Parts: sequence; structure tokens; C-alpha cells
Amino acid sequence: MMTDHERKLAVVAAYVDGFERDDAEALAALYAEEATVEDPVGSPGVVGRDAIRDFYRAAVSRGIKLALSGAPRTAGDSVAFPFHVLRRRVGAEEVIEVIDVFRFDAEGRIVEMRAYWGPNNIRPSA
Amino acid sequence: MMTDHERKLAVVAAYVDGFERDDAEALAALYAEEATVEDPVGSPGVVGRDAIRDFYRAAVSRGIKLALSGAPRTAGDSVAFPFHVLRRRVGAEEVIEVIDVFRFDAEGRIVEMRAYWGPNNIRPSA
Repeated sequence: MMTDHERKLAVVAAYVDGFERDDAEALAALYAEEATVEDPVGSPGVVGRDAIRDFYRAAVSRGIKLALSGAPRTAGDSVAFPFHVLRRRVGAEEVIEVIDVFRFDAEGRIVEMRAYWGPNNIRPSA
Repeated sequence: MMTDHERKLAVVAAYVDGFERDDAEALAALYAEEATVEDPVGSPGVVGRDAIRDFYRAAVSRGIKLALSGAPRTAGDSVAFPFHVLRRRVGAEEVIEVIDVFRFDAEGRIVEMRAYWGPNNIRPSA
């Protein structure tokens, strides 16, 4: 049986994998029905699993991939993890350094996602 | 004149520096009067600058030092940053991998600090 820590790590792994497979359906399935997504923090929230599915459809259609850049930190009902967003553009690739925070409900579904990144966290890929 | 991004980075740098110099007063001065600290997330909060000063006095008296392990991510009124806590113990040193989130007021003081880490983020130093 998985510990609470392991369950949270499994959601983070499934999240990275959903982008790897361009699977917006799988990404939305990690969320509770009434969940909210604020990406980046400070932008208007995306509310509800249907809207969240559309949000990830747009993301995977842009070819976005994720690579963890440090250990996920688990605390209370939440996990925070640092990663790089790899975004291919015509003739170039750019990297965005992001920290996501997931808050979970009792069933282990994400009820709140907050993505911390801004214009200063975007740089050309090495 | 500093940009909003630079001001947030300066607070993060001052935070790391406050631990470096064992200066609980300087750490507390980064906070607004009515600020809250939740460290780790899920624990009872520390409320108000006086209680926060005591919190940091206890931390620096344990010889805690911080080392950033990635770029601070600035978004909206907040910054999130990954770091390692280095904690010396008799005959050994341990490392805790942490992500802190600071939320700021209009004057650039921290009004909310949330520290993400748990038992699984503690390991012996290499």
C-alpha cells in the first residue's frame, strides 16, 4: 500500500507523463470536479474539470513537455515541485522554470493547482 | 530603480543572508506586522511579526543555513523558490529540501510564508 507521500509523488509522475503522451484527458482526470487552476499565479483561474481539460488540450497542442528539476516537497495536504517546461517553437526551444503547488482532497485528487512563474523565468534552451 | 521581479529577488537574497548572519531581527523585518508563517504547510501557523521573530530566533540558534537550489519563480504578488536547509548536528549534517512561497503586500513586505517540506525531504548530507 502506498504511503501518503508516495501517492502524492505518483500524481506528480502522472502529471509529467500526461504531458509526455499529449494526454489532456489523463491530466484532467487527476483533478476533482470543482478544482481550480491558477497558471501563472495572478492570472484568472480556470474553474472546473471541463475547463481544466480544455486548458490542457491547448497546452499539449503546443507541444509542451515537463522535466522535474528537483525533489517534490510533500507537506500537509499539498505537494510543491520544481520543473522546467520545454516549449518548442519554430527554429528554437525555450525553457520556463516553474514551481507548481498541488493541494489534494481526501481522495487524492487535485483541488487546487497554482503555478509560479513569470516572464523572467523564460530563457532560451541551452 | 528595481523592477517588481528584482524587489522579490532581493527579499529572497536578504532571507538567505539573514540565516547566514544568524540575524533573526533582520529576518522578521522582512515581514508585515500581521504576517503569517506556516512551516511546514499543515502545521499551526505563526502569527504576527513578534512571534515570527521568536520563530527565527529558534531557527538560527540551531545553526540553520540556506542554499538556493534553483531560480526563484516570481508570479503575481508572490515568489516561490527551491532551496536546501543545511542543519548541523553533533557529528553529522543533514539536508532538508524545501520550497518556500512568499506572498507580498503593496509595500513589498511578506504577508504570508508557506514552507513545503516533509519527513521524506530530509536526508544525510553528501
